[in-house]
Amino acid sequence: MKIKIFVTGGTFDKEYNELNGELFFKDTHLTEILSLGRSRVPVDIRTLMMIDSLNMKDSDRNNIVQNCLQAAEDRIVITHGTDTMVETAQALAKEIKGKTIVLTGALIPYKFGSSDGLFNLGSALAFVQTLPAGVYIAMNGRYFNWDNVRKNKELGEFVEVKV
Amino acid sequence: MKIKIFVTGGTFDKEYNELNGELFFKDTHLTEILSLGRSRVPVDIRTLMMIDSLNMKDSDRNNIVQNCLQAAEDRIVITHGTDTMVETAQALAKEIKGKTIVLTGALIPYKFGSSDGLFNLGSALAFVQTLPAGVYIAMNGRYFNWDNVRKNKELGEFVEVKV
Amino acid sequence: MKIKIFVTGGTFDKEYNELNGELFFKDTHLTEILSLGRSRVPVDIRTLMMIDSLNMKDSDRNNIVQNCLQAAEDRIVITHGTDTMVETAQALAKEIKGKTIVLTGALIPYKFGSSDGLFNLGSALAFVQTLPAGVYIAMNGRYFNWDNVRKNKELGEFVEVKV
Amino acid sequence: MKIKIFVTGGTFDKEYNELNGELFFKDTHLTEILSLGRSRVPVDIRTLMMIDSLNMKDSDRNNIVQNCLQAAEDRIVITHGTDTMVETAQALAKEIKGKTIVLTGALIPYKFGSSDGLFNLGSALAFVQTLPAGVYIAMNGRYFNWDNVRKNKELGEFVEVKV
Repeated sequence: MKIKIFVTGGTFDKEYNELNGELFFKDTHLTEILSLGRSRVPVDIRTLMMIDSLNMKDSDRNNIVQNCLQAAEDRIVITHGTDTMVETAQALAKEIKGKTIVLTGALIPYKFGSSDGLFNLGSALAFVQTLPAGVYIAMNGRYFNWDNVRKNKELGEFVEVKV
Repeated sequence: MKIKIFVTGGTFDKEYNELNGELFFKDTHLTEILSLGRSRVPVDIRTLMMIDSLNMKDSDRNNIVQNCLQAAEDRIVITHGTDTMVETAQALAKEIKGKTIVLTGALIPYKFGSSDGLFNLGSALAFVQTLPAGVYIAMNGRYFNWDNVRKNKELGEFVEVKV
Repeated sequence: MKIKIFVTGGTFDKEYNELNGELFFKDTHLTEILSLGRSRVPVDIRTLMMIDSLNMKDSDRNNIVQNCLQAAEDRIVITHGTDTMVETAQALAKEIKGKTIVLTGALIPYKFGSSDGLFNLGSALAFVQTLPAGVYIAMNGRYFNWDNVRKNKELGEFVEVKV
Repeated sequence: MKIKIFVTGGTFDKEYNELNGELFFKDTHLTEILSLGRSRVPVDIRTLMMIDSLNMKDSDRNNIVQNCLQAAEDRIVITHGTDTMVETAQALAKEIKGKTIVLTGALIPYKFGSSDGLFNLGSALAFVQTLPAGVYIAMNGRYFNWDNVRKNKELGEFVEVKV
């Protein structure tokens, strides 16, 4: 069972530019992270964009939806900035049936050494292998259905909308 | 849904003694690892032993089995050395029905900075929330049924016995 | 021989705010860095300010000069942002005679795990113990006299003005 | 002023073998460490041996002495296990005059992520550029003359013999 991984950027892949002190995107670290985790899950990684999710436009979301629709795999992980992850999950749920899609991200860039990204990717890969068809967010060791989740920006964590 | 985590030691929790250059056990790093992963999964962590799994005896395995039987939770993660993880899984499967038990471990100590432990714990926590009752090993981003897994010691990875 | 360490901020001590994705200052990590280096050099650490050196004003520089003048110690290390480190060195050299003052900094925040800060602090502490009275910059494993150094902002390294 | 760096192994360069859980030597990490420290000091690195200093024999020490004698450079850093660093310093001092030789090491392997090695190498490179001819040990942010130093094995630090 091969799993598709679509990379869209987000904190996960941000790096520190030591010449000007700003954060920026270069290449994805997904392969490196999976190697560090000694993952032997068959995956096919494709970078769709490398952007901060606050800058994600409808056309970008449509791009993600189309790629998920056209993917041969029916189990898909998407790395994504946390700020608008819920919006993208909603856009995906509207168009896609019969596939298990799990969005995940990080609060700390992987390159900063003490990132939650490695933990989140481990849980996202596990959830995508075991959950039934649907669109989910995997953060904080938990999974959430696309229609019952929001980011609590004060705490930096994901919570259910209705309890 | 609270998850029980039983700590038994293994590479996961080994540390480097800078006075004599040997590896040893002090306290578990589970709480620190979960905090790094920003986990919000309700867990109850209990250390049963802190040993290398090559030194695990029948009485130790029986101790683990009894603790799983008596635990109020029916979803349990066990951190364990990789060398005899399969034997413990077999001992558990013989005695316990109706609970989801996931064993996981690490090839590199968490304290060494580039450990697979954070990734493995993320996946183990996800698998224990989603898999049906049974005994499983979660390593390399995958899960294995207790009766269909062995450690390939040359490669340092877990594989199915029968394909 | 006790050494004074004055902390002024700079990249050295920047942290990543996981709630808004911005870099900011909280407390200095000097004690933690010295502990990681197993330093047994007697030091007295005092934080004068926690600012980006691009925001350093004349009054801030005067504050640093006055503190160096009044310090009981005649060997002083100053952690400082790299962008205006040379200006502060010049301000110090104009007013202070008979003390060995070494400014150092980092291109990568210490908290980001792969920082040059630990290396630079090791070299700055060594230079301050061995160089004669004067004002110096310690970066890139080297030391520079205050009147013969500039930061090459394209390369992110310090070089002599005249060769 | 080019500096010679002779690598002899020691904790500095030890790695963790994830297949059998033992520590071992592969290649030196000196180039990587200097790159992390953004060092621009001209150096020439040569690996003489990769051994635990407890296993160092008279013939190994003689090898180090001969290489220091024959080196074109008169400023030399030697990375070395801490347990017998003092013996090697004594062997060097007996034979070599007119060169500045600084031995350094680490208590924690560089690969374990929280090593003192980066700090020690920064200080050793600084000391070798500034100290007069002689044989020294650079550890704990300090330097010691070869004839006035011992390792306190209970504390894992270097101290003067006579105060």
